[in-house]
Amino acid sequence: MHNQTLENPVRTMHVKTIEWLDDSNKVRLIEQTKLPQELEYIETDDYQVMCDAIRRLAVRGAPAIGCAGAYGVAIGALSVRDNDFGVFRAELGRIMDELRATRPTAVNLFWAINRMEKVLDQYHDVNLAIDALIQESKTIQEEDIAMCRKIGEHGASLLSDGMTVLTHCNAGSLATGGMGTALAPMYVAKEQGKNVKVFADETRPLLQGARLTSWELMANGVDVTLICDNMAAIVMRKGWVDAVIVGSDRIACNGDVANKIGTFTVAVLANRFGIPFYVAAPTSTVDPNVATGDDIPIEERASEEVAGFGSCRVGPESVKTYNPAFDVTPHDLVAAIITEQGIHKPPYDFSFLK
Amino acid sequence: MHNQTLENPVRTMHVKTIEWLDDSNKVRLIEQTKLPQELEYIETDDYQVMCDAIRRLAVRGAPAIGCAGAYGVAIGALSVRDNDFGVFRAELGRIMDELRATRPTAVNLFWAINRMEKVLDQYHDVNLAIDALIQESKTIQEEDIAMCRKIGEHGASLLSDGMTVLTHCNAGSLATGGMGTALAPMYVAKEQGKNVKVFADETRPLLQGARLTSWELMANGVDVTLICDNMAAIVMRKGWVDAVIVGSDRIACNGDVANKIGTFTVAVLANRFGIPFYVAAPTSTVDPNVATGDDIPIEERASEEVAGFGSCRVGPESVKTYNPAFDVTPHDLVAAIITEQGIHKPPYDFSFLK
Repeated sequence: MHNQTLENPVRTMHVKTIEWLDDSNKVRLIEQTKLPQELEYIETDDYQVMCDAIRRLAVRGAPAIGCAGAYGVAIGALSVRDNDFGVFRAELGRIMDELRATRPTAVNLFWAINRMEKVLDQYHDVNLAIDALIQESKTIQEEDIAMCRKIGEHGASLLSDGMTVLTHCNAGSLATGGMGTALAPMYVAKEQGKNVKVFADETRPLLQGARLTSWELMANGVDVTLICDNMAAIVMRKGWVDAVIVGSDRIACNGDVANKIGTFTVAVLANRFGIPFYVAAPTSTVDPNVATGDDIPIEERASEEVAGFGSCRVGPESVKTYNPAFDVTPHDLVAAIITEQGIHKPPYDFSFLK
Repeated sequence: MHNQTLENPVRTMHVKTIEWLDDSNKVRLIEQTKLPQELEYIETDDYQVMCDAIRRLAVRGAPAIGCAGAYGVAIGALSVRDNDFGVFRAELGRIMDELRATRPTAVNLFWAINRMEKVLDQYHDVNLAIDALIQESKTIQEEDIAMCRKIGEHGASLLSDGMTVLTHCNAGSLATGGMGTALAPMYVAKEQGKNVKVFADETRPLLQGARLTSWELMANGVDVTLICDNMAAIVMRKGWVDAVIVGSDRIACNGDVANKIGTFTVAVLANRFGIPFYVAAPTSTVDPNVATGDDIPIEERASEEVAGFGSCRVGPESVKTYNPAFDVTPHDLVAAIITEQGIHKPPYDFSFLK
């Protein structure tokens, strides 16, 4: 474990959320549960530490969890290095199951581990398999990095010098293996020498904006102002916001966008003030089997999240709450959907992805 | 001090936020800083306890502070009962100044104390003055109770059985000497046998909705569901909200309404979904010297409120924030303004109040 206080925040372009260390064959990742008070890293060659990190949300965000799962398989393989391939294969199968069980609803986790397993199944030699698995896990992150950068480049073409962007939740580098999705345009714009500022919604109930987005933007040297979700309207009315960029958890064929609760409100406000509302997400977020947002199920989460704030209980005992984790922004409010492939404009029709 | 746990909440119509006790010549008020975890009362004949209660926000909300100030003068007068009127008058003058200094920006506090002082100045006998001051302080609350009830009656005429109302912040009985302003229509509707439900926005950053509104509605037997501010859109989209009723801190002649930050967002959302957005407030809230909302100054408060809640710090150290305490809802989004005088509909012109 390394400790680095925020007095000397990382001023390089990107916070490295997760990375493979070639010298030691270990994985290094940010302990996100300690953010934003402390920047602490986990450095491990123990797949069970990785299982635990995924379970505790020390690493979160779909693409980042995918990378973590793949690296978990790689360090798992190193730990069961055994001359007999059958024993090795059986043991690694058990490890992959253990990794899959850490977050049963994380699609990217399964996708990454299954991809690792396909590589594994091409080998019958332990050492060759291990080398290939390490390479594959690094490739998964490299692809993620490239995908983020492409989204960032396409998105940055929509931003000019002096613009201010409002974002909701965290679809940044902390959620991916690369520079993020919704925050990537701001990072690329900064690389291009554009002075871009950001308003970060705090994003109740879990406060990803306050804890993560404002932290990573500060750490990466981007000017950020934290506001409560209900302050977006006054900030927009003052003419302080030139564009909104958010991520997405799932996009329907018609361009309806499911994202963190509160996104829909931001879109309605942006519409009232004539501010373009952009969604930045990898093409893999589009679910070609979902025709419209009405078909996207909305998870409801625990009451305590709404009745409390951080570790503080606020609402009355036994107060009734409603706590949807996501909402759906209808496509008519979405000015463009930015993917690694380019900028999609309305009318949206992603059925070609079927 | 009396303790009453929430296991047996008050099921009468109104939580009694503040009242004069004739038997003991004391004031009894809810210790609101303990809400919603505990319902505790302060019972005192010590004006300094009252000063402290106002300062600590144990009593808050403009009309309730007015009542507290008036009662503070009454118990202050009782405590300096002295045969010499000159000594009595001088000492009570000092007490009134001490009460005024507790919340220098509370207009109602000054209004109530000045009204008490005018009564005082009609007397030259200590005992007669004390009787008149006690009577005046009770009259101030009685007028407040009547004003709230009239707002409630007018507002309830807009509500029918089975309706659900969304509200923001706390403009309820806890903020007044009576049944509140924005919540009064729901209380009167309930008395009328109408089954009315409420969604309460938690109201970041100070969470008055979570701490106070949801508590008082529960305590008064009204069905309430607490949501985060950013969930209003999904709740409206599901067709679960029939009307919005909020209070106001200041209303301009043209009907622009200043109220707790977040109100404007609710109004924009209500507009999108065709839900009537009502403001309920006493006529005294209208400032006839303010032509439009642009002329209403917006207080900015401490950064810590946005970066955390209470003792829970969430945002990064030294994160930049923006923290406006109020926003202005433009009159075109306001379906009606409910006062004790009746229901005002657009186009608004309150210049007759000059």
